[in-house]
Amino acid sequence: MTILHPDRLFPPDPTTRGIAREIFSQIQNAPIISPHGHCDPAWFATNAHFSDPSELLIKPDHYVVRMLISQGLQFEDLGIVSLGGEATETDPREVWRKFARNYYLFSGTPTRLWMDYSFQEVFGLTQPLGVKTADLYYDHISERLTQDAYRPRALYERFGIEMLATTEGALDPLDHHRTLQQSGWDGVVITTYRPDEVTDPDNETFATNLDRFADITGCNLDTWAGYLDAHRKRRTDFRAAGAVATDHGVPSPLTADLNLADCIELYARVRGGQANAGDPALFRAQMLTEMARMSIDDRMTMQIHPGSHRNYNHDVFRRFGRDRGFDIPRKVNFIDGLAPLLNAVGNEPDLRIVVFTLDETTLSRELAPLTGAFPALYLGPSWWFLDAPDGIKRFREAVTETAGFYNTVGFNDDTRAFPSLPARHDMARRLDAAFLAERVADHRMSETEAHQIAYDLTVTLPRQTYRLID
Amino acid sequence: MTILHPDRLFPPDPTTRGIAREIFSQIQNAPIISPHGHCDPAWFATNAHFSDPSELLIKPDHYVVRMLISQGLQFEDLGIVSLGGEATETDPREVWRKFARNYYLFSGTPTRLWMDYSFQEVFGLTQPLGVKTADLYYDHISERLTQDAYRPRALYERFGIEMLATTEGALDPLDHHRTLQQSGWDGVVITTYRPDEVTDPDNETFATNLDRFADITGCNLDTWAGYLDAHRKRRTDFRAAGAVATDHGVPSPLTADLNLADCIELYARVRGGQANAGDPALFRAQMLTEMARMSIDDRMTMQIHPGSHRNYNHDVFRRFGRDRGFDIPRKVNFIDGLAPLLNAVGNEPDLRIVVFTLDETTLSRELAPLTGAFPALYLGPSWWFLDAPDGIKRFREAVTETAGFYNTVGFNDDTRAFPSLPARHDMARRLDAAFLAERVADHRMSETEAHQIAYDLTVTLPRQTYRLID
Amino acid sequence: MTILHPDRLFPPDPTTRGIAREIFSQIQNAPIISPHGHCDPAWFATNAHFSDPSELLIKPDHYVVRMLISQGLQFEDLGIVSLGGEATETDPREVWRKFARNYYLFSGTPTRLWMDYSFQEVFGLTQPLGVKTADLYYDHISERLTQDAYRPRALYERFGIEMLATTEGALDPLDHHRTLQQSGWDGVVITTYRPDEVTDPDNETFATNLDRFADITGCNLDTWAGYLDAHRKRRTDFRAAGAVATDHGVPSPLTADLNLADCIELYARVRGGQANAGDPALFRAQMLTEMARMSIDDRMTMQIHPGSHRNYNHDVFRRFGRDRGFDIPRKVNFIDGLAPLLNAVGNEPDLRIVVFTLDETTLSRELAPLTGAFPALYLGPSWWFLDAPDGIKRFREAVTETAGFYNTVGFNDDTRAFPSLPARHDMARRLDAAFLAERVADHRMSETEAHQIAYDLTVTLPRQTYRLID
Repeated sequence: MTILHPDRLFPPDPTTRGIAREIFSQIQNAPIISPHGHCDPAWFATNAHFSDPSELLIKPDHYVVRMLISQGLQFEDLGIVSLGGEATETDPREVWRKFARNYYLFSGTPTRLWMDYSFQEVFGLTQPLGVKTADLYYDHISERLTQDAYRPRALYERFGIEMLATTEGALDPLDHHRTLQQSGWDGVVITTYRPDEVTDPDNETFATNLDRFADITGCNLDTWAGYLDAHRKRRTDFRAAGAVATDHGVPSPLTADLNLADCIELYARVRGGQANAGDPALFRAQMLTEMARMSIDDRMTMQIHPGSHRNYNHDVFRRFGRDRGFDIPRKVNFIDGLAPLLNAVGNEPDLRIVVFTLDETTLSRELAPLTGAFPALYLGPSWWFLDAPDGIKRFREAVTETAGFYNTVGFNDDTRAFPSLPARHDMARRLDAAFLAERVADHRMSETEAHQIAYDLTVTLPRQTYRLID
Repeated sequence: MTILHPDRLFPPDPTTRGIAREIFSQIQNAPIISPHGHCDPAWFATNAHFSDPSELLIKPDHYVVRMLISQGLQFEDLGIVSLGGEATETDPREVWRKFARNYYLFSGTPTRLWMDYSFQEVFGLTQPLGVKTADLYYDHISERLTQDAYRPRALYERFGIEMLATTEGALDPLDHHRTLQQSGWDGVVITTYRPDEVTDPDNETFATNLDRFADITGCNLDTWAGYLDAHRKRRTDFRAAGAVATDHGVPSPLTADLNLADCIELYARVRGGQANAGDPALFRAQMLTEMARMSIDDRMTMQIHPGSHRNYNHDVFRRFGRDRGFDIPRKVNFIDGLAPLLNAVGNEPDLRIVVFTLDETTLSRELAPLTGAFPALYLGPSWWFLDAPDGIKRFREAVTETAGFYNTVGFNDDTRAFPSLPARHDMARRLDAAFLAERVADHRMSETEAHQIAYDLTVTLPRQTYRLID
Repeated sequence: MTILHPDRLFPPDPTTRGIAREIFSQIQNAPIISPHGHCDPAWFATNAHFSDPSELLIKPDHYVVRMLISQGLQFEDLGIVSLGGEATETDPREVWRKFARNYYLFSGTPTRLWMDYSFQEVFGLTQPLGVKTADLYYDHISERLTQDAYRPRALYERFGIEMLATTEGALDPLDHHRTLQQSGWDGVVITTYRPDEVTDPDNETFATNLDRFADITGCNLDTWAGYLDAHRKRRTDFRAAGAVATDHGVPSPLTADLNLADCIELYARVRGGQANAGDPALFRAQMLTEMARMSIDDRMTMQIHPGSHRNYNHDVFRRFGRDRGFDIPRKVNFIDGLAPLLNAVGNEPDLRIVVFTLDETTLSRELAPLTGAFPALYLGPSWWFLDAPDGIKRFREAVTETAGFYNTVGFNDDTRAFPSLPARHDMARRLDAAFLAERVADHRMSETEAHQIAYDLTVTLPRQTYRLID
């Protein structure tokens, strides 16, 4: 008995399905390259056992929590502790049972497919999860988590991972990555430079963040030049910890290219706590261009993730803090937003800027035309809220006719849910195979071409984009 | 000979079609639940015969009129009388002939499918409508309309309707509903509270509407508190006439949550005819939040229909009045618009707010993320301009991966075209079956799950959303 | 051996494919009607041989150039001479080799399909283009271009063209069209009036353009009345050179309907070089309405192409000039934009305004509702960036359920790449056949209807829209 069907996500037409199977068979066992994600480096540094199923699979996954909350469960029901420390469910088995009882809510969502894959392929379960199998699941997974084969490094190896990038803030000591480098383990777990907390004047602790930035780097944060030096210093540190990329989470894709005098004055205002209303946005905008310039120098790939309205639900934010499922996409304008950046550095042949979107209306109108023209610009894979079969299909349909395949960068799993990491790559490969098979079936391309493109999307493009084979 | 094919709207792949047929067979004969529509309660209260085919099927249907106008017919050709009373076609048979001659214009539109269903299933016609069959149709339908089996209550019963909600303004005397309640007929035809004419200061007769609102309710409309009391009074009246829901047609989804002092001042200005430029929009915005608060108290489901630019064609509006096919969708922003409302009441576990959109770009970017997170928010079915096979398919594809099925509310026919009411439910059920069948065929869900979801979309979710089974 | 499959672009399901084949067979050999394009009238006037393959097929095609640039090739690599005249590749064979080496980049794009069609059907090549066949291709095509059968008029005849419209600016002497009219050749190559350079005050040479406009027309350009007369004069000239349409490329669909006094003042400011910040946009907006009014008089079909951000890449514009692949779509708002125009002339039964969009979000929300209601408004085919199989499919899916087929106007190839002109019509006909076949296969329409609609889309609607059969 199995939960997963071997033909899942393939088109139903028998001819097309046959082509998809053939394409998939060529990439199914290719190594997993994960250049953008949010796993905790501590897992691999300490290689400790994961705790219980609820702690591992439910509580930290905002896709899961959000859906349960939307249907009337309380955070407390899920054992999530409020900032005020109010009473909450403390038995992880009870949390698991609530999840199992509501598992039908995930029908039609990617969470369902990723979870089922983890249950079957990672944990060896063969019956569907539901009210009747809740305890069986809880006991089975709990037992597995005590085995050495389920410790982080063993799973990394079992999953066939070639490299895994985590993401750390500019103030991170990088201790776990240092431990990893000195451990002798031959897994490749590297960091990514994410400086948002020291580039966003709207951050609640921006001033003290800059103070700590000064301490860590030894740079003079009183001047614009010193501030940029601090970034260069930290980029070098991250590079030494393996980083091949930077990542920038910004409310909008607004960029700027001010002259030096304006930069100096702007920095003085935001550093001195005397920012005008428009200064925080302008500072973030200018810093994207500065980061792009530094990427020309140190050859790190730059990733821009714009357009999330963070902590939209004030009450949930006040009671439970960040990342609780209430970050909501918003309309963005890449055409006006990216113009200063692209006119500054967009024609650089050796620069790689990867842009992502939560607003799929920008795909055919803005991002395919831009990435299909500018040498420095690439299009990141279908992201958050759009990282599922229909969303990914729409992404390729909206983009390919203008930008082709080679202005995209392959798949990013973008996940902190380590047990579902191979599930996400499996899904992406199946969807690539299905998309290509449809184009073979209607004779838009040959089967030979489709095989080559499938391999390039899985292996070649991630390696090239993040210079893993330079 | 038939007009309709039994497999219509099912996917062509034989395996998928087989699954769709199976799913559809389980819901095909389920009762029709119609919690949101615009039928005239007088039909059921008086149970009079409908008049001629043109009066019943053409003139009041703005989907039909609009298309004919767009291709150069005049309103006068269709027997629609101008406000100035100019000469117009007076022979309904001639109007019907013009419709028949232009019936090819509707190829590819839902009107065509709904009409054909009505012709075959309601009136028993078996040949396609066209120039040659125009008179045959006219005579046949005319004859049927004289039969008792074609009076409104008989059709209601024949259609298998479980409940039907009409929509009345806040100033409506609800006489027809009172008649219905006292009639002994066991059909369930209830009202819905639609207060737009007393919440929209841009309404041409707003001032006199408030005067009438005072008369009807006996409340003191000079104060904000009295104005809110008038709403409470009328909501109670509507509740007594069976209402389970309110409905709000607004130009944009803007909401507000002002403090009491600001509410009092704002109301004083709009009541006193001294509104500032931004006041009408702000007042509508505040009233959405007030209505949501009242819904917590009286447990009526709140429906928000934003984004229609009414009476876009000034000349047509001046000559023929409202609802003539020139209400055009416009871009909306739910993220900024709904924030005040959702931060006021969005986490209420027992509140039900159903939101609709005419702007499908908001589905994956805004509405699926919001309804897939907030406990109080639900997503209404694909509405006006998007209420057809391709639009409905895109709706489910854009929404399901983020919000699942259980943050949607099942189907609303939203129609004033009573003879096509079962056609619309038939179409919706076929499309649900097709959508689910595709997901069974590519193994995203099991056939068992698909059957359960199909039943829930058809029966369970409408009953739950509108508390028909509390 | 062939490059093209006879079933290309048809749906893979065997039943549906069979229907598509049948529909396509009825329109495959219909004459090509090309009422909107950018071919050079000199080709047909002089009927000279085309030069080499690179000059014909690569350098002038911004779809091709853009993609190669996006992947790091330089304009100089492609033999494109900068405005400064810097060193560049001068051997067209070397340019061709670079193109062949990078031909894989076009997988999944329409360029690939159009090119392959030209290679096989126009030039008789049978092996796929690639590194190994680059020289074979170059030699083969070069040889063909020396044959008389490959001169422009011979190709026109071979392609089965019924009429071909080129596009000329308001200041064009129309010499080539005059030559054509006097040549005795019975091909129908007509002009189109495109007055952008004399209606856009933001044009760099607007002032001198108006001076030349005065010279050419003999009108007094010092007054608004004289300026309008100059347009009337030139429209008459173009009409005499065969024009059936005007074309307007504008940054946004903004229109205006000012009173005469405001028009006189606005014109005085833009003519006198004293325009305010908002004047250029307002003048363009007013001129769209003026052009529509003139179209009522002279019965030319009006085409509006809004929403391209021209010359987005400043460096490329400075070095290589216009039309180098960096015109990028931008968000547009037809609802607010077109309201003044439509309220002025939208109800005119005999006026034909065809509107195009680069922003596909406007299709279901704005353009289908508008064209499905206003008698004067029609929807142009899926344009630039959306002129490929998936884009065209989305276009029909977004539009048809609201506007039907008969508020659209058939296909425009919109191309300056003459050898691929039949490829584009072939693609459009296949996609129409596929779209209709899907609707026959799921019983939304009968096969008879689908055949009629296919013919109307291919032949009837272009003839009607551009009054080719008046």
